[in-house]
Amino acid sequence: MKVTIVGVGLMGGSLAMDLRKTGIASRIVGVDRKEEHLKQAMELGFIDESSDLSAAISKSDLIVLAIPVDAARKVLIDILDQIPEHAIVIDLGSSKQGICEVASTHHNRSQYVACHPIAGTEFTGPSAAHHGLFDGKVSIICNREESSQEAISVAERLFKVLNMTIINMNAEEHDRHIAYVSHLSHVTSFTLGLTVLDIEKNEKNIFNMAGSGFESTVRLAKSSPEMWGPIFRQNADNLLKALDAYMEKLSGFRKIIAERNVGEAEEFMMEGNEIRRILEGIELKNKEPAWPEQTKREN
Amino acid sequence: MKVTIVGVGLMGGSLAMDLRKTGIASRIVGVDRKEEHLKQAMELGFIDESSDLSAAISKSDLIVLAIPVDAARKVLIDILDQIPEHAIVIDLGSSKQGICEVASTHHNRSQYVACHPIAGTEFTGPSAAHHGLFDGKVSIICNREESSQEAISVAERLFKVLNMTIINMNAEEHDRHIAYVSHLSHVTSFTLGLTVLDIEKNEKNIFNMAGSGFESTVRLAKSSPEMWGPIFRQNADNLLKALDAYMEKLSGFRKIIAERNVGEAEEFMMEGNEIRRILEGIELKNKEPAWPEQTKREN
Repeated sequence: MKVTIVGVGLMGGSLAMDLRKTGIASRIVGVDRKEEHLKQAMELGFIDESSDLSAAISKSDLIVLAIPVDAARKVLIDILDQIPEHAIVIDLGSSKQGICEVASTHHNRSQYVACHPIAGTEFTGPSAAHHGLFDGKVSIICNREESSQEAISVAERLFKVLNMTIINMNAEEHDRHIAYVSHLSHVTSFTLGLTVLDIEKNEKNIFNMAGSGFESTVRLAKSSPEMWGPIFRQNADNLLKALDAYMEKLSGFRKIIAERNVGEAEEFMMEGNEIRRILEGIELKNKEPAWPEQTKREN
Repeated sequence: MKVTIVGVGLMGGSLAMDLRKTGIASRIVGVDRKEEHLKQAMELGFIDESSDLSAAISKSDLIVLAIPVDAARKVLIDILDQIPEHAIVIDLGSSKQGICEVASTHHNRSQYVACHPIAGTEFTGPSAAHHGLFDGKVSIICNREESSQEAISVAERLFKVLNMTIINMNAEEHDRHIAYVSHLSHVTSFTLGLTVLDIEKNEKNIFNMAGSGFESTVRLAKSSPEMWGPIFRQNADNLLKALDAYMEKLSGFRKIIAERNVGEAEEFMMEGNEIRRILEGIELKNKEPAWPEQTKREN
């Protein structure tokens, strides 16, 4: 299968590597508005050639959109306008309603499958790409009834070869849920990072006191602003709802702390401990533990 | 050296293991109000015998307090009342002003060293204890001028044998800083956990969509309420200040998201990205990476 990867960064690059390794891709063409990224991708060897979008589309069996969600929404339409009859296009974005909406009335809509593989790292660019990024993870397919059976088959085969579990969901439901379990934690992590960086301006050496617990809570603050800005805009309504629920809980916890009410604080935290049940599920899903035993929570 | 460990859980147990391994402790006595914990500690072999506090004190060269900070404040006075002339006592608590205050006027104050090794995990109890917990980490000694030179020497020898970097700080400064780089992230993590658990009541299967990014941000919500309730009370003033700074930043970010202002959102996040510089420092400090390469941030 001839594959075009639009956006040869962490996600696109990692996918290219595994599609080649598993034999699904016979030839991989890279498209990226950054010349530097294409050069790197060629050097790293996960694309066979670089091309402009139109030329790449005409020669493709599968086109993968791995660019920020606002750009993806525009580029998808360009692709659907030109896509060969037998080819399919998928995207990997973290918000799905926006892109499904713009595609919904396109005469080639059925050749598009809206996907969200729950995988990634806080690093960006071709050099962050690596084998096995998708292995054992979940991939969500949205609004599958709007895609042709053939297109769904290709997408499912792809995710199965990558050893992913496929979940079907409508785009509205996807965006509502992902606001809580992904977008919200990015907002809280960035905010924590900024709060502590701010205080550091006056309190030098404060970070000598930070341990792996802080590191874990704040690590999503390393994520790419270019990826996340558009996600937050596209999913603003759901994210604001999640954020308001969080802020309300936080105000409640603040009150308990201000009252020095140890009993209520412990009760609040015991309820929070229930997250263990959830995390065990996530750990089972991931093949590797998310951190080694000896670097767990700092006091 | 005969060592008594008061509180044979994660911290006390891990310390016992390494003190024995390094040869610093010739005999280790465990004291704990939970009989079950003493039994487990004996079975796991990191204490030689269990005892009540008074009997243990009289036979000790070094007493280590590894219990919640409110209990530690009381028990420290009992210990200083009975401590043999040659012996010293240290604590490992995450808030230092409270305990230093109650000890400050005691006639045996100089035999106490106020310590905070920045190490731990989100797990609790004797079964969570393990070798190497303190290896390569930072240990803070507070108000060292109130301790005798002999007591400081023992404490420093101990931390050096554990391969820890020692930082000196006054208790007020310690509590002010640790509120930002440890206590605040526990509050945000517990709150995130509870927010998502709450929504889960209506939205089943939401956690199928959670990946390692969520896991990382929320993992401190597994921490022990019994340990953290008293810490939040003792350090409430500093924590509230940190929390207010965080909530103000969060409101600012919320406004940007509500306005769908991608430019400003990206600017906010780019400032947050600066945390990379800090995290690199923490990673260098820890001997093991806090998570393996392939499980970094989820989209």
